Amino acid sequence: MVSYMNIIDIIAKKRDGKELDTEEIKYFISEYTNNKIEDYQASALIMAIYINGMSYREIKDLTMEMAYSGDVLDLSELGPNVVDKHSTGGVGDKVTIILAPLIASLGIPVAKMSGRGLGYTGGTADKMEAIPGYNTGLSESEFINSVKKIGVSLITQTLNLAPADKKIYALRDTIACTESIPLIASSIMSKKIASGANKIVLDVTCGFGAFMKNLADAKELSKTMIEIGKLAKRETICVITNMNQPLGYAVGNSLEVIEAIEFLKGNMPDDVKDVVLELGAYMVKLAGKGEDIEENKKILLENIKNGKAYTKFLELVQNQGGDIEYVKNTEKFEKPKIIKEVLANKEGYVQEINAEEIGKLSGNLGAGRKNKDDKIDLSVGLVLNSKIGDFVKPGDRIATIYANSLEKAEEAEKDLLNIYVIGTEKILEDTIIDIIK
Amino acid sequence: MVSYMNIIDIIAKKRDGKELDTEEIKYFISEYTNNKIEDYQASALIMAIYINGMSYREIKDLTMEMAYSGDVLDLSELGPNVVDKHSTGGVGDKVTIILAPLIASLGIPVAKMSGRGLGYTGGTADKMEAIPGYNTGLSESEFINSVKKIGVSLITQTLNLAPADKKIYALRDTIACTESIPLIASSIMSKKIASGANKIVLDVTCGFGAFMKNLADAKELSKTMIEIGKLAKRETICVITNMNQPLGYAVGNSLEVIEAIEFLKGNMPDDVKDVVLELGAYMVKLAGKGEDIEENKKILLENIKNGKAYTKFLELVQNQGGDIEYVKNTEKFEKPKIIKEVLANKEGYVQEINAEEIGKLSGNLGAGRKNKDDKIDLSVGLVLNSKIGDFVKPGDRIATIYANSLEKAEEAEKDLLNIYVIGTEKILEDTIIDIIK
Repeated sequence: MVSYMNIIDIIAKKRDGKELDTEEIKYFISEYTNNKIEDYQASALIMAIYINGMSYREIKDLTMEMAYSGDVLDLSELGPNVVDKHSTGGVGDKVTIILAPLIASLGIPVAKMSGRGLGYTGGTADKMEAIPGYNTGLSESEFINSVKKIGVSLITQTLNLAPADKKIYALRDTIACTESIPLIASSIMSKKIASGANKIVLDVTCGFGAFMKNLADAKELSKTMIEIGKLAKRETICVITNMNQPLGYAVGNSLEVIEAIEFLKGNMPDDVKDVVLELGAYMVKLAGKGEDIEENKKILLENIKNGKAYTKFLELVQNQGGDIEYVKNTEKFEKPKIIKEVLANKEGYVQEINAEEIGKLSGNLGAGRKNKDDKIDLSVGLVLNSKIGDFVKPGDRIATIYANSLEKAEEAEKDLLNIYVIGTEKILEDTIIDIIK
Repeated sequence: MVSYMNIIDIIAKKRDGKELDTEEIKYFISEYTNNKIEDYQASALIMAIYINGMSYREIKDLTMEMAYSGDVLDLSELGPNVVDKHSTGGVGDKVTIILAPLIASLGIPVAKMSGRGLGYTGGTADKMEAIPGYNTGLSESEFINSVKKIGVSLITQTLNLAPADKKIYALRDTIACTESIPLIASSIMSKKIASGANKIVLDVTCGFGAFMKNLADAKELSKTMIEIGKLAKRETICVITNMNQPLGYAVGNSLEVIEAIEFLKGNMPDDVKDVVLELGAYMVKLAGKGEDIEENKKILLENIKNGKAYTKFLELVQNQGGDIEYVKNTEKFEKPKIIKEVLANKEGYVQEINAEEIGKLSGNLGAGRKNKDDKIDLSVGLVLNSKIGDFVKPGDRIATIYANSLEKAEEAEKDLLNIYVIGTEKILEDTIIDIIK
C-alpha cells in the first residue's frame, strides 16, 4: 500500500507533541518552498513546533532540508576545512570585519558571505560599503577566485541560499514565533551549511541587545546548535558573549568600520579584543592550525601587532575595488552634519548601557533599515566614550552623537542620558561568558 | 497613553498559555472577519488555542463575538422563550423533522433554520427538499410570518449568520484543528445565538458516527456549552446520545423523511423515540410549558398518538409549498433504480453497525456531498432491517440498499457484510447516555 503524505497529518502529529519523521520534515520543507503548502498551514505547524518543541534529530533534519532548499555553495576546493563564523546578533558588532583579514593573515582561507539584514544598524556587508568603491556584490566565481588569490573575500549574499529558511523566517515574524530555540537554531545552521562551511564558530550573544536575553536560553540555543552540528557532521563551537552593552565604542556603519580598522592597526577596545581572540582562536583550531586555544590567541595578537592582519585588510579592500586611502587615513570617511557631545549630569560609575536601547537610538538616527528597500545613512551613529565600569563626573563626555538632523541629535542626547545608568557601585561584567562545545 | 492592539501580541499571549481579554477576542474576530488579519495569523492563534485551551470566559467571549459577526435573527416577537435544538451530528438523524411539528403541535413556536452541510447525507434542509415543492428558501420575514401563522417553519440558512465562525471553521479543517472542544463549543453556540435562540437543547452525539468518539469528550463538550450558555444568558441543556450505530433504520434523504413521517404517524423506532422524547421534553421545559420531564414526554407521546403532530407536519409542508400527497402516502416518493436486499451470512446477534462506516457507504451511494456545489441524490441510501441486539440467521434480510448504479449497490452489499458484526453474545446499548445541565 502506498502511503501519501499529507500536511494535515503532519500538523496533527506535531500538534500532539509527537516526533516528526525525516520524510515528513523533508515533505514539509520541499512542498512549502514550492508553494504547495499554504502559509496558514505552515503557520499552524510552526506554532505547534514553538509550543511542543522538537528533538535534536528533528531540528537537524529541518536544518538540512532548509540548507538544501536552494543553492549550496561548494567551497571544497579551498581545502578540507572551511571555517565560518556567525553571530546571533548584537549592537556594535564589527567582529567579522576584523576576523576576516586576521584569520586570512594566518593562511587560513576566509570566504565570508554576510547579510545586510534588517535592524538597528546595517549588516557587515552594509558596513563594508562605507569604504568608497568596495564591491560586496561579487559573483560566486569571483568570490571563490578572490579567496584563492589573496586568501579572503567578504561579500553580501547574492545566491539563493536556504530559501525555505527565508520563507519560514518571514512567516515567524508575523505569528509571534521568532523566539523558538529549535527554529532559531535551524535557521542559523541552515544558512551556514548552505554557504559552504563544514566547521562553524558561533558567537551566541546574550543580554539586553541580543536575541537571547538570559544565559539559560543562550546555553540552550548553543547546546542545540552543537547537537545539530554533530548530527549534520559540521563541527560547531559556541562562544557565549555579553551583549548587555554594545560591543566596543562605535555604533553605526562607517563608525564601526573605522573602529575595526583602528583595531587592525593595534588600537583594541578590551571587549572587542576578547571576542575577536576567543572566536579567532577557535576558528584557528577548527581549521586544524592549532590545538591550543591560548597559543592561538597569541598568534592572532602577534599578527595584529606585526601589521599582517592590517596588510591583509588593505589587500581585501583593494581586491574588491575599495579606496584604501580611507583605510590608511580614517579621517577621510564622510562625517555627518552634526557631531554632538553628550555630557554626564551626575557622578559615579556607569552601571548600565542597554544595548537594545542604543540600537534603537542608532536606528532612529538613520543607521539601520526597517524595510528591505530602505536606504541606510552610513555616516550616522554614536560613539560611547565611557562604558560600564568607567567613573564619570558631571561635565565628562560620556558619548558622541553623529547625526544628520539637529532634531534627531537632540532627541538622541535626551535618550542617551536616560540610557546611561550611573550609580555609586562599580559593576564589572565579563565579555566572554561561556564556551559550549 | 493609547494602547493599540496588535494580533502578534494576542498570538504571543495565547502561545504562552495566558488568558485573552474580552477586548482582544473582540479585536481578533472583528479584524479577521473584515480580512484585516491574515489567515496565517489566525491559523497560528487557532493552533495555540487548540494546544493551550481557553477558559470558559474566553470561550463565551469567542462565541458571542462570532455570533454577532454577521446577521443575528431577532425572534423576540415570537415570545420570551425561543427554544432551539441542535445535534452535533450523526448518521440517520431525522429528529429535527419530527420535533419541529411535534413541539409546534403543543403551541410552542418553532422557527428552525437547518444547514445543508457537508457529510455522508444531506442536512435537514436537503432532506425536506425530498418532498416535491417544499421551499426551504424563505426570506426572513416569510419565515417569521410562517411561524406566527401556523406555529412552525423549517428553512435552510439564507442569512449571513456567524460569518466569523464560517471562516474559522473552514480554516480549522485545513490545519488539523477541528477536534478542539473550545472551538467546537463556540462554533455551535455562536450559530444558535445568531439564529435567535435564547434557550438551547443540544443533542451531543457520542460514538463511532459522532464527532465525539468517547464519553469523556462528549461530557467535556457538554459542560463547556452549558457554561457558555450560563455566561451568555442562554439557558442550555445537553442530552448525550449514543451514535455508535445509526439512529433509526433509514439512512439517506427521502428514506429519512419517510421514516420521520412514519414516526409522526405512530410508527416509532425505539431509539428515535427515546431521542425525540428526551430532547422534546427538555424543549418543552425550557419553553416554560412544563417542569416535569416525564410528564412532558407523556404529553409529547399523546400528540403523536392523537395525530396532532402529524397534522402540524401537513400544515408545515403545505405552508411551504410541498406536496402533501407524498406525506399522506410515502409510497409516492421516487425510488432509485436498484433496491437490493442484503442477507446475513451467519447466525448470531448483531453486535456492531459502525455508524461512521454506514455514513461513508451512504455517501458513496450519492446521498451526501463532498463539496458544497455537489448535487445530492435524494432517493439513495439504505435501510437497516436489523440493529444491534437483533438475532439473525443466514438468509435473513439485514439491510436494504437503495442505489442508482448496480456497481455501487454491489460494492455497498460487500461493505455492509463487513460492517455488520455478528456474534454469539447479545449486546444492548442505551440510546440516552447522560443529561448535562
